[in-house]
Amino acid sequence: MKKSGSLENLSEALRRLPGVGPKSAQRMAYHLLQHDREAASALGHALLNAVDRIQHCAACNTFTEIDVCETCQNQERDTHLLCVVETPADQMMIEQTLTYKGLYFVLMGRLSPLDGIGPKDIYLDKLITRATNGTVTEVVLATNFTNEGEATAHYISETLKARGLKVSRLARGVPVGGELEYVDAGTIARAMLDRRAT
Amino acid sequence: MKKSGSLENLSEALRRLPGVGPKSAQRMAYHLLQHDREAASALGHALLNAVDRIQHCAACNTFTEIDVCETCQNQERDTHLLCVVETPADQMMIEQTLTYKGLYFVLMGRLSPLDGIGPKDIYLDKLITRATNGTVTEVVLATNFTNEGEATAHYISETLKARGLKVSRLARGVPVGGELEYVDAGTIARAMLDRRAT
Ligand SMILES: [Zn+2]
Ligand SMILES: [Zn+2]
Repeated sequence: MKKSGSLENLSEALRRLPGVGPKSAQRMAYHLLQHDREAASALGHALLNAVDRIQHCAACNTFTEIDVCETCQNQERDTHLLCVVETPADQMMIEQTLTYKGLYFVLMGRLSPLDGIGPKDIYLDKLITRATNGTVTEVVLATNFTNEGEATAHYISETLKARGLKVSRLARGVPVGGELEYVDAGTIARAMLDRRAT
Repeated sequence: MKKSGSLENLSEALRRLPGVGPKSAQRMAYHLLQHDREAASALGHALLNAVDRIQHCAACNTFTEIDVCETCQNQERDTHLLCVVETPADQMMIEQTLTYKGLYFVLMGRLSPLDGIGPKDIYLDKLITRATNGTVTEVVLATNFTNEGEATAHYISETLKARGLKVSRLARGVPVGGELEYVDAGTIARAMLDRRAT
């Protein structure tokens, strides 16, 4: 008995999602085809649409459909401050605290030599160019307080201080080992206020 | 700060996959866009393709791209035997045991009154028509040995016996509470050989 080609293709494509093994890929495929074809179509179109339209902001590197994202274009932000985060989700968490009015740079990851993730993969050159534009006076490092996030912060701090920039780090109000995305806004607000020079 | 429309759409569409919550949907979206756009495209096309092409076999009800699937068209199968399974995955497990040469009917689910899943949702009328075609002499019930699978087997058994068919059930070599998909082929082979009249 051969499997249907389209069904097999779908299961294999679902397996490429992070955290989805062969059994759950198969279950997802059956579920979509049997119970939610509308969701399958919606996801199909959303994927192709996103791949087609989403690029990196020329300034802050986050995902955007326009050249320079709305946050970077916002005239009311403090252009002297640049906050460095690992992901767009981390940026959203910081925005929710309402304690920060500067701009952002999104690394889209963290240094992880063991996984082969080096400075180029976190857009370090783009960050240096952005941070040394003559307007930024302080870079706030808001990478996660995991081992990799701390190492990333240290590396960026050394690199930017060597270029004469003032660099600070969110205070350790964030629990050690914690990931920003899962911390409550109050704790992040505290850490933002207590940020320290590095 | 607003999220990008395409990105938000993608996260929301990924949330409709079974077992995927908001956080993992967001992580999947970031992962695909940052690290595996090719997988995102492949999955997008696979979904639209599957929705477009995959229908139910007119005979056995499994997923297929043709009117009557290859298994049902196979002239070497024993047309007197009809094995009823919950899912295509269960059918594949039984095929792997090489103990069964008859045909199949795939319910695409199981009875579950508490979830509002009744006889129509498991294609009972289609099964009755299929089983009473004058050629089938024995129906082998191979639904899971869970509470719902057993109830489904009981319901189908009563329905088909009332129409004069011989109905058997896989022997309880399959562990009670177990799901076929996760049982080793040897156990299923044993249960197939020991199937009993109901
Ligand atoms: Zn931007
Ligand atoms: Zn068929």
